[in-house]
Amino acid sequence: MKIAVLGVGLIGGSIGLAARQRLGSEVIGWGPNRPTLERAEELGAIDRSAASVAEACEGAEVVFCACPVSALTELARAALAASGPEAAVTDAGSTKREIVAELGEDARFVGGHPLAGAETAGVGNARPDLFDGARWYLTPTEHTAPGAYERVEAAIRELGGRPRALDALAHDRLMATVSHLPHVIADVLVGQAASELARDSEQLPDVGPSFRDATRVAGSNPAIWGDIFAANREAVVVAIDDATARLREVRELIASGDATEIAAWHAQAAELARRLEEDAGAGSEG
Amino acid sequence: MKIAVLGVGLIGGSIGLAARQRLGSEVIGWGPNRPTLERAEELGAIDRSAASVAEACEGAEVVFCACPVSALTELARAALAASGPEAAVTDAGSTKREIVAELGEDARFVGGHPLAGAETAGVGNARPDLFDGARWYLTPTEHTAPGAYERVEAAIRELGGRPRALDALAHDRLMATVSHLPHVIADVLVGQAASELARDSEQLPDVGPSFRDATRVAGSNPAIWGDIFAANREAVVVAIDDATARLREVRELIASGDATEIAAWHAQAAELARRLEEDAGAGSEG
Repeated sequence: MKIAVLGVGLIGGSIGLAARQRLGSEVIGWGPNRPTLERAEELGAIDRSAASVAEACEGAEVVFCACPVSALTELARAALAASGPEAAVTDAGSTKREIVAELGEDARFVGGHPLAGAETAGVGNARPDLFDGARWYLTPTEHTAPGAYERVEAAIRELGGRPRALDALAHDRLMATVSHLPHVIADVLVGQAASELARDSEQLPDVGPSFRDATRVAGSNPAIWGDIFAANREAVVVAIDDATARLREVRELIASGDATEIAAWHAQAAELARRLEEDAGAGSEG
Repeated sequence: MKIAVLGVGLIGGSIGLAARQRLGSEVIGWGPNRPTLERAEELGAIDRSAASVAEACEGAEVVFCACPVSALTELARAALAASGPEAAVTDAGSTKREIVAELGEDARFVGGHPLAGAETAGVGNARPDLFDGARWYLTPTEHTAPGAYERVEAAIRELGGRPRALDALAHDRLMATVSHLPHVIADVLVGQAASELARDSEQLPDVGPSFRDATRVAGSNPAIWGDIFAANREAVVVAIDDATARLREVRELIASGDATEIAAWHAQAAELARRLEEDAGAGSEG
């Protein structure tokens, strides 16, 4: 199988390594940065580099686009223009609604998002086992050719990932809820505590793990998170609205002062948390 | 110094142990439960038990009220009725606005809240060093006699605590912000994630530590938290309102899609989080 990797950083490099070692694929790399391409070739992440997107995509059966989200739609568009009618083009961007809205009518495009590599960057950190056991979302549309979807899905399984089809909007909302919203809330809690403490020149009292746990990610990697919040703004806004609506509900419950009803609500959260953990445990085997 | 301890569970028992060992005080205990009183005497937490609140308070210079919040105001009221004009009466309840509103006009009453012992309960877990280095809030009012305040404050220092005067409402708001609100939000996040995942029959994806950290306390000890939320409902409602107002602000910022402005806001949270940690570090020596 001939594979093109457009953008050979951590994700693209790891796709190349895994594809060459596990699928025995021929991997052609392209990227805007000549030294990075040369490094990828040295590290064995690609067989050879192409001078253009068109050259990289020529004859490729699957094209992986793995550049930063802000440049992704244009790169994938160029890949589709350069690829043959039987090719499948996918991407590795962490938000999906925007790119799918732009390219989802092309039968050869399959949006993708591997949940891996968040902590590091660069082809120097690429590993053939980066995706082992990792969820890899795919966001086909009604226009996606079944053959293109199946080819991408099969390749991802061979790379070690656990593919799952999800509507692009559902994907973005899910990421907003389980990752982006907790980051927003961590920032809010920190700002609120700072105001409250400043009012009485008091220090942060040690009242148990709830505050520190909830704010551990406050302000982490501002540049990266600025881009994530901006790219996924529609879904993050929906998640914030959902959270504020839920907070308004529990506000009324707590204002009622009915300790029994409040305890029942709180106990329900314990049950849901337990179920989420069970599901996650089961999921890691799937 | 003669001390009365009304309610000899974990907190009252630890006050008794520390007062006897460190202040050389005579400690008289009272509680509604005879076997608990006997156990406290066996463990050396009290010198002897009294048959009534009045008997326990007779001649006591400081009276500590350490029963559950729901019975605290009535207990402290009985202690004030039974105590002499020179006595100081304090409590160990985790919310202060309500009891101070009821008893704050009595010059001998000093509201209190030691931040210790949240994990265990019962006189069997009492320890003379339970309060060592722990913040111990005191909530005097304009009516509080300076002599009563100073006697309680001095006793708390000898027990190992770090006393700090705070307005009762400020205390409750601080607790609401740094402890009760994170618990409410953990429950909200779990409920929201459960709804989102159920919609697509998806499992909780592993997207990093933010969600698990933020929801670690979801649904913990429903009965205890039902009482805390109910007792501190005014302050928790204010904290929820503050959080929703802040969420509405950041919602607008994120909706704007300006990654640079969003990153700047996020970076500010990092700075505030760093400062809170520094303050907390400095505070532990104070």
